[in-house]
Amino acid sequence: MAEIDTVALGARAEAMIGELAAISAEPNLLVRLFLTPEHRRAADLVARWMHEAGLAVSEDALGTVRGRLGEGPRLLIGSHIDTVIDAGKYDGPLGVIAGILAAAHFKGHAPVPIDVLAFGDEEGSRFPAAMTSSAACAGLFDRASLAMRDREGISLEQALRSYGKDPAAISEAAYAKGGVLAYVEVHIEQGPRLETAGQPLGVVTGIVGQNRSQIGVTGEAGHAGTVPMDLRRDALAGAAEIVLAVERIAQKNEPSGMVGTVGRLDVHPGAANIIPGEVRLTVDLRAMDDKARADAYASIEREAKSIAQRRRLAVAFEILHDEPAVACDAGLQQRLADIIASFGGRAPHLPSGAGHDARKMARLCPSAMMFVRCRKGISHNPAEYCAPEDMGLAIAALIRFIENFARS
Amino acid sequence: MAEIDTVALGARAEAMIGELAAISAEPNLLVRLFLTPEHRRAADLVARWMHEAGLAVSEDALGTVRGRLGEGPRLLIGSHIDTVIDAGKYDGPLGVIAGILAAAHFKGHAPVPIDVLAFGDEEGSRFPAAMTSSAACAGLFDRASLAMRDREGISLEQALRSYGKDPAAISEAAYAKGGVLAYVEVHIEQGPRLETAGQPLGVVTGIVGQNRSQIGVTGEAGHAGTVPMDLRRDALAGAAEIVLAVERIAQKNEPSGMVGTVGRLDVHPGAANIIPGEVRLTVDLRAMDDKARADAYASIEREAKSIAQRRRLAVAFEILHDEPAVACDAGLQQRLADIIASFGGRAPHLPSGAGHDARKMARLCPSAMMFVRCRKGISHNPAEYCAPEDMGLAIAALIRFIENFARS
Repeated sequence: MAEIDTVALGARAEAMIGELAAISAEPNLLVRLFLTPEHRRAADLVARWMHEAGLAVSEDALGTVRGRLGEGPRLLIGSHIDTVIDAGKYDGPLGVIAGILAAAHFKGHAPVPIDVLAFGDEEGSRFPAAMTSSAACAGLFDRASLAMRDREGISLEQALRSYGKDPAAISEAAYAKGGVLAYVEVHIEQGPRLETAGQPLGVVTGIVGQNRSQIGVTGEAGHAGTVPMDLRRDALAGAAEIVLAVERIAQKNEPSGMVGTVGRLDVHPGAANIIPGEVRLTVDLRAMDDKARADAYASIEREAKSIAQRRRLAVAFEILHDEPAVACDAGLQQRLADIIASFGGRAPHLPSGAGHDARKMARLCPSAMMFVRCRKGISHNPAEYCAPEDMGLAIAALIRFIENFARS
Repeated sequence: MAEIDTVALGARAEAMIGELAAISAEPNLLVRLFLTPEHRRAADLVARWMHEAGLAVSEDALGTVRGRLGEGPRLLIGSHIDTVIDAGKYDGPLGVIAGILAAAHFKGHAPVPIDVLAFGDEEGSRFPAAMTSSAACAGLFDRASLAMRDREGISLEQALRSYGKDPAAISEAAYAKGGVLAYVEVHIEQGPRLETAGQPLGVVTGIVGQNRSQIGVTGEAGHAGTVPMDLRRDALAGAAEIVLAVERIAQKNEPSGMVGTVGRLDVHPGAANIIPGEVRLTVDLRAMDDKARADAYASIEREAKSIAQRRRLAVAFEILHDEPAVACDAGLQQRLADIIASFGGRAPHLPSGAGHDARKMARLCPSAMMFVRCRKGISHNPAEYCAPEDMGLAIAALIRFIENFARS
């Protein structure tokens, strides 16, 4: 095995990430949405890099840029080049650039056939659904989503046509199961676990299942000065107990990696001198164990009902979204862990609390993800930061993973 | 003492309240703001009623309509004819109409000189300050408030001039202390205590002191999927504990009539998939006992600080408003209670949790308030309702109070 210059790789990755981050719809913040002129420019830059790395470049019907090396069943390496609004610059681009730099390492002669994929829609920032690009590659694209509209009323179908794509060709974007060996994705962690553990790289065990629901609490609005405490039916006091119940139930399940969040809470009428008559709050519950998550959600409902009963409030539940967990391939996890160990790391195994393209790709083929430490776990924020030396290590590990894969 | 036909009085009051409620700036909701054309029309109607009741009508520099009967030191009877936006029809008008009907009972020969007062600004719905009309009568008008502006940028001074008033004459609106004996006000309770007690009338012990503050809780925003529970600094979870602490501390002081309310709570950034980084909430604390209220507020601050410390949050406090309690005259309270008892009632003594003109008038002369039961305690709402029979009883009690006052 040739020596790998991780410092040079990290510096090169950092420079490329900076170049990509300069492509934005806004001058002072990073925003690069699916099928926009910025997407086009970013895709062209990625295609140029792929070409320079010795890859044969093509684009599928959803605009995913593909860099191909070698013939036959292949290893897919990918991530996304779209962003959230006011994004950081590492979320997505790191995985694409890692794939390109790893492929470039082999100077046109990869030990195993490779496709590097740059997906154009992972975040779902423009249209209501997310991960449509990887869904198309995995043969999971839902044609109903062509009718989805963005904030300006433009449908996905119209946007694809304006981008020069033919919606009828989307089915051709799907890989045949026999044509792929595995999918691997490098991504910043977007959480603080690796930093807390003092480790640059982590092995992802899977992508958590997620339950998003809304709870409505109804009491009775009233004058803050004239209704005695014992005659109140204060919707906010009840909601406050529910917020703490969500936290407590998630904490109880913390050993299994569960997280529970009330991120939004709206009070009506919301005046300082009026007792709140109604509160609506969201509950976001995530865990690798779908059964534990379902049990936890049932506990939240039970507790909320009991709080409401005790306080003479009405409570209503609405599940907005429920998606099962997806496990990463155990064998691939072990390979990644061994490789990271060979670099002197002791890679924590950790679930991904965020969704990733690997969620879709895992339904096509054995999939793996490597997380890279990011500062303070901050992401979806301009303060997002990943150290070049950590990125260099991640790319080196990806190179070893490809070599190792070829020997297996 | 002549018999009083409470049924007829209640029916007459109900009809007059309906007539006044027809004067509104909007066709489908009741809104009658200070110094507007609706105020003019309402004042003219009240003046006509006063005239028909045998009172000599005048208007002071703030537009307060005064109906005078007899010469010499006098008993003042008043309330207000302005409303909140989308108001009920009893809040204010009942007290003015009760005064007019009580005065009318004496057919031009009251046992004690009387002024019936119809204040034009109690609610403070147009300009930022409230109770400017009664403040002027009590000699407490703050000339700085002439510069206050309404939502359209019109100053109080401009509005007074457009209404045909001379701001220089405001000081003449003040009663000389030697010219007044007492102030009495009939008002709907705006709370559920009388209904709960099964009593039509109550004696007000005073108007509660009030502390309005804002608490800011700062944690750290983060991805709802990637930050483990034990590394979170969730501002909303901390705020939820504070909401419950406010409730608990007010409940502990409930025997003394304290109420505490968090009516507004804003979460930032307020997205379902983001851990809240910042919450701002209001605390409204009211009690008759200023010392108990100050102690309770100190407890809230102490608890909030301890919650914040335990959760690694920052917490900041801002007092927006702090007004001491005003006691009603003990002797007048006793007289009202005795009179109500003579009608077969067992009048609860209760504090007023809302502000009233009596808050200002109590600084001029001994003051008293009689509360009238209203349905479900609902007020500041078109569903506000006060039964004619209860209004008739209240007016009869006011007539007896005037007779009793003349004998004392």
